[in-house]
Amino acid sequence: MPVKLTAPNPASLLPVPGIELGIGSAGIKTPSRKDVLVMRVAADAETVGVFTQNRFCAAPVSVCKEHLRGEAGIRALVVNTGNANAGTGEEGLQRARETCIALGNLLGVGPEQILPFSTGVILEPLPVGKLIAALPAAIADLKPANWAHAAEAIMTTDIVSKAASRRVTLDGVDFVITGIAKGSGMIHPNMATMLSFLATDAPVSCEALEAILRHAVNKSFNCITVDGDTSTNDSCLLTATGSTAAPVILDDGDARFPALRDAVTDLMIELAQAIVRDGEGATKFMEIAVEGGATEAECKQVGYAIGRSPLVKTAFFASDPNLGRILAAVGYAGIADLDVNKVKLWLGEVLVAERGGRAASYVEAAGAAVMKNEDIRVRVDLARGPAAATVWTCDFSYDYVKINAEYRS
Amino acid sequence: MPVKLTAPNPASLLPVPGIELGIGSAGIKTPSRKDVLVMRVAADAETVGVFTQNRFCAAPVSVCKEHLRGEAGIRALVVNTGNANAGTGEEGLQRARETCIALGNLLGVGPEQILPFSTGVILEPLPVGKLIAALPAAIADLKPANWAHAAEAIMTTDIVSKAASRRVTLDGVDFVITGIAKGSGMIHPNMATMLSFLATDAPVSCEALEAILRHAVNKSFNCITVDGDTSTNDSCLLTATGSTAAPVILDDGDARFPALRDAVTDLMIELAQAIVRDGEGATKFMEIAVEGGATEAECKQVGYAIGRSPLVKTAFFASDPNLGRILAAVGYAGIADLDVNKVKLWLGEVLVAERGGRAASYVEAAGAAVMKNEDIRVRVDLARGPAAATVWTCDFSYDYVKINAEYRS
Repeated sequence: MPVKLTAPNPASLLPVPGIELGIGSAGIKTPSRKDVLVMRVAADAETVGVFTQNRFCAAPVSVCKEHLRGEAGIRALVVNTGNANAGTGEEGLQRARETCIALGNLLGVGPEQILPFSTGVILEPLPVGKLIAALPAAIADLKPANWAHAAEAIMTTDIVSKAASRRVTLDGVDFVITGIAKGSGMIHPNMATMLSFLATDAPVSCEALEAILRHAVNKSFNCITVDGDTSTNDSCLLTATGSTAAPVILDDGDARFPALRDAVTDLMIELAQAIVRDGEGATKFMEIAVEGGATEAECKQVGYAIGRSPLVKTAFFASDPNLGRILAAVGYAGIADLDVNKVKLWLGEVLVAERGGRAASYVEAAGAAVMKNEDIRVRVDLARGPAAATVWTCDFSYDYVKINAEYRS
Repeated sequence: MPVKLTAPNPASLLPVPGIELGIGSAGIKTPSRKDVLVMRVAADAETVGVFTQNRFCAAPVSVCKEHLRGEAGIRALVVNTGNANAGTGEEGLQRARETCIALGNLLGVGPEQILPFSTGVILEPLPVGKLIAALPAAIADLKPANWAHAAEAIMTTDIVSKAASRRVTLDGVDFVITGIAKGSGMIHPNMATMLSFLATDAPVSCEALEAILRHAVNKSFNCITVDGDTSTNDSCLLTATGSTAAPVILDDGDARFPALRDAVTDLMIELAQAIVRDGEGATKFMEIAVEGGATEAECKQVGYAIGRSPLVKTAFFASDPNLGRILAAVGYAGIADLDVNKVKLWLGEVLVAERGGRAASYVEAAGAAVMKNEDIRVRVDLARGPAAATVWTCDFSYDYVKINAEYRS
């Protein structure tokens, strides 16, 4: 069950001027399931995205990248669940393009102004006919106050839908940011296996929006792991509609830039953590904070070595303060000149290891008390520099195996 | 349960002239369990070793490296289970040294002629008093035909003991090679979490023996993964007693060198595969053969991406021919310029994927038939070069979680 996570209150999700969302039912994998989302974007909006680095990237990812490189503004996103259209070769590309043509025709825009997204089973041909047949109903459903339904429509093995909003006041003008995400398994950065769509009504140049997206993803979706697997379809999109009037934020020199960037980042961290809290079979949520590194990269490296270790994750499932497994993961994280005698390790507020071994002050009961919590913080001080990074992960339970042995993803 | 693996027939394990083994019971973790092994080595033998690259290497690993660097010949190995003496700081080093002093005194050799090994729980102080008290009984038990008991004495979560022998005729003279190994969890190369001790009666120089060991480990223990965790204590030792008379094999220019090297490698592959077959919770044994790579290293990288993916491993547990998960792992293995349209994938003899998607000839029933086997071969052709590598791994089952959530390792 999700760890301290419930579906968002629909009333808390703020409509974004310039964005309308409509849901449809294509029956791609499961009859009558809501499995199609269309998100219509106002003219003159800017949209930017980051995508999986998996070499077997899915057909829709290739098409998205192509369309984002074009000059025509993006006018709609279309998402289906039940089929990832990944590992589908030339035919998969064609089906993603057909989807764009169909939706473009229905909305009166060019196919290159559509971004397609798919999530679900890999290596199966996308039933593009069913998908296209469901588009008119989704378009008929388009409305601004539809974010909660949109979050539900993109779920796959997710138990809880994921969505959140922020308000931000920039130079006296109020703006909103709202985002949705899905993802539960095949979660590891670059990107975590996930789809996420965010939008704001602030006016932002493409360049500034890119900078905001990269910063926010690096601090959120690229800091989580469930199982260490990087999916073929991961995509994170950020749209700025500019529908609320204000001078355009051109670049990071604009005084409003940091506040907007931080609000987007904050929202994205909430969505990224929600994915981990809903990780397949998760019973615990772990924050792994690594400090004292020479670089942020090596801190993340250590965080991930801990966060993806099956031995660490099963120990957390068992609420076992198995310090040895955590220290072993620090030791094999790949920092060749790490001085393990300087490393310190905390479980919650309890110092558990230092000087290459168990801390003299440590008593097992104190560690065990921390491990009983659903939210657990692991802190590592590498004592070799000023850098830090935080990684979020969940434990590894019987249910993880059950879900992945029984679900054909 | 172990996958097609049974304990070796004791009669098949050939005594190695110059090696005697004795078992003792120190009650380190479990009362009356056989948990101590002493292996006495003839004077003038050569002994070489490779060890974990985990920065948190255990105290006995540090002491072994120190003693192997010395000029005095190694005269005995001592192994305990139940406690790894890892993450134990300065005191751990001292206890490993005390063990060497005690055994050296009992055998009439210097402490620097002893190599200590420990495996078991991390971060707990080694009960060195108990260990030392058990040494006289182990010494009294010393005999050449004791390899089967030795293999049992070094087991931890292993279900089946691991040992094997080879005969090799070099220039008309018959020699034997016998080895034992333990390991079941925390298994990943450099080194896999394991201890292994091999010996031959052939006369080999230190330099030639090093070359043989590195070659063999690279083709065996450094090709296996159970859970991706690299332990703190991994050690693989190879002794050449020279007790059977023949001219010394000085270096790889000796005509007898390749035959001896290949026989040691062959034996080590059998032991490495036995560790995977006895992997914690294993129900399937997978050979992942990657060919057509630019380098052997990138082939191993792809093999390990597949072999350590929890999604792939749970699919194998479920006997599900989930090709998408395997292709996804190939895609995120880190080869930046991989052309996925050229990659081919086979399950057993069945071509399942090519041209970036499912092979036209593939039918699910054929893949499902392969997946029902206990031994499964996955073959990947990267189609970008002449290099190849093979990795062995096992599946991920409910029992993996159970074992690791319940066992304090």
